[in-house]
Amino acid sequence: MKVFSTSAEIYTHVLRERLEGKRVGLVPTMGALHEGHVSLVRQAKSVCDRAVATIFVNPTQFGPKEDLSKYPRTLNEDLEKLDQAGCDYVFTPAELQMYGEGHSTYVEPPQVASRWEGEIRPGHFRGVCTIVLKLFQMIPADIAYLGRKDYQQLAVIRAMVRDLNIPVCIEACETIREPDGLAMSSRNRYLSHEQRHRALGLIRALRIAERLVERGERDVQAVESAMRQELLAAPVDSIDYAAIVDPVTLEPIAEIESSVVAIIAARLGSTRLIDNATIIARR
Amino acid sequence: MKVFSTSAEIYTHVLRERLEGKRVGLVPTMGALHEGHVSLVRQAKSVCDRAVATIFVNPTQFGPKEDLSKYPRTLNEDLEKLDQAGCDYVFTPAELQMYGEGHSTYVEPPQVASRWEGEIRPGHFRGVCTIVLKLFQMIPADIAYLGRKDYQQLAVIRAMVRDLNIPVCIEACETIREPDGLAMSSRNRYLSHEQRHRALGLIRALRIAERLVERGERDVQAVESAMRQELLAAPVDSIDYAAIVDPVTLEPIAEIESSVVAIIAARLGSTRLIDNATIIARR
Repeated sequence: MKVFSTSAEIYTHVLRERLEGKRVGLVPTMGALHEGHVSLVRQAKSVCDRAVATIFVNPTQFGPKEDLSKYPRTLNEDLEKLDQAGCDYVFTPAELQMYGEGHSTYVEPPQVASRWEGEIRPGHFRGVCTIVLKLFQMIPADIAYLGRKDYQQLAVIRAMVRDLNIPVCIEACETIREPDGLAMSSRNRYLSHEQRHRALGLIRALRIAERLVERGERDVQAVESAMRQELLAAPVDSIDYAAIVDPVTLEPIAEIESSVVAIIAARLGSTRLIDNATIIARR
Repeated sequence: MKVFSTSAEIYTHVLRERLEGKRVGLVPTMGALHEGHVSLVRQAKSVCDRAVATIFVNPTQFGPKEDLSKYPRTLNEDLEKLDQAGCDYVFTPAELQMYGEGHSTYVEPPQVASRWEGEIRPGHFRGVCTIVLKLFQMIPADIAYLGRKDYQQLAVIRAMVRDLNIPVCIEACETIREPDGLAMSSRNRYLSHEQRHRALGLIRALRIAERLVERGERDVQAVESAMRQELLAAPVDSIDYAAIVDPVTLEPIAEIESSVVAIIAARLGSTRLIDNATIIARR
């Protein structure tokens, strides 16, 4: 596994591979890697000739009240995990490499970024879109692998790629979960034993939503209030949202008709967790 | 010369050329081509294996008070000129091809876009950056050829390419002028005989600025007021700006030290003309 730290090097290297006919898969990360990230690399390797991972804690996607400096940084362990997963190249730029002096161009995110995370974390998706666009320019990959756990982020990046004609395919990968159902997240490490237990409220709420729709419930409010009830029973300390939305636009829907997504954001102490489930309503 | 109208076709075609080792030059235009555009194609052909021109009147760079529908459209003549200049491929997308349903991602332009044209034409550079970024994604060229006549646009695109790491070189090409010095522009066709004559105030003002700096003038205000005087003597009907600025940031400068740019925007009737000159102050 080869590690690069400048955009010029990684670009030249990946371009050469592309010119040689190799298929390149990209896994953008902020480090603090867990089994979810590793599975993205494995999927990249199973389809592509080369897997490239990036590790960069992107300052522009953190809000003014969010603590960038506390974000976990575990570079040595991350490199070890990537190497074991068969990753070929890792790009670990310094901040000045990504945001040089005078940097002032940003991406104004698509409509699908405006609600939910976009509302609670102003500027978050502007930072996400900007860094992802930059990485897509620096690393001319065929396919980018993104986890479904950050469902809105996935929808935002898909819309950006479509709107800006970025020549990359977006491959959405299943959320990897702990045996008890908790979605893998770099933030799980912040949970106390007791919070970790209560955090299961998220997956339970999603499963209840699935079961209700499976049994024929088509009323959005009924499903949403059942999700809330389950979250409050866990109990989580607060609910940012628990909603049934359109899978593409992430807009609230009036009635459950075909495919919908249940999305949840809730807090346990100072840790904020998100999760989601795609639910298919059979006629 | 081959004409394409869908992004999928032009992308596949140009990518294949790149994979075969061909060097590709890109000339983005809004049509209504004149000798300035043609010279960009010739320069592209002199350096690259293939020259690609795009013709698209981009609605998002027109302000609410600017008349998109009145922009000159001369497709047949344009194609004739491009063919004669040795252009290999032309991309002439329909509006829906460039801005599909639900399009909502834009580029937030760099700092250098904020003054001058950016102030007078709010949203203009947001539209310019967005369409140029899109074209750079659809047409993976090695070099993009842009005219120096739209000096701020050139500086904005340079900054965007740098900030977003877009893998394309920007080649700035000299302004092509009529024998009497008027900068070629698609808008010149709107000038009456009498306005056409008065429009020479712009080049005269730039030449006066050059001469003053050549003779040792280092006071910005003295040079700017000489430019204004010349413009008002022409007379132009109004001056949007006539300024001496930093060549990279386009910020006003305190004193003329090395290289500066004189920029002018003035109106003749309802026609707005811009022009500029890079001036090197010798010590």
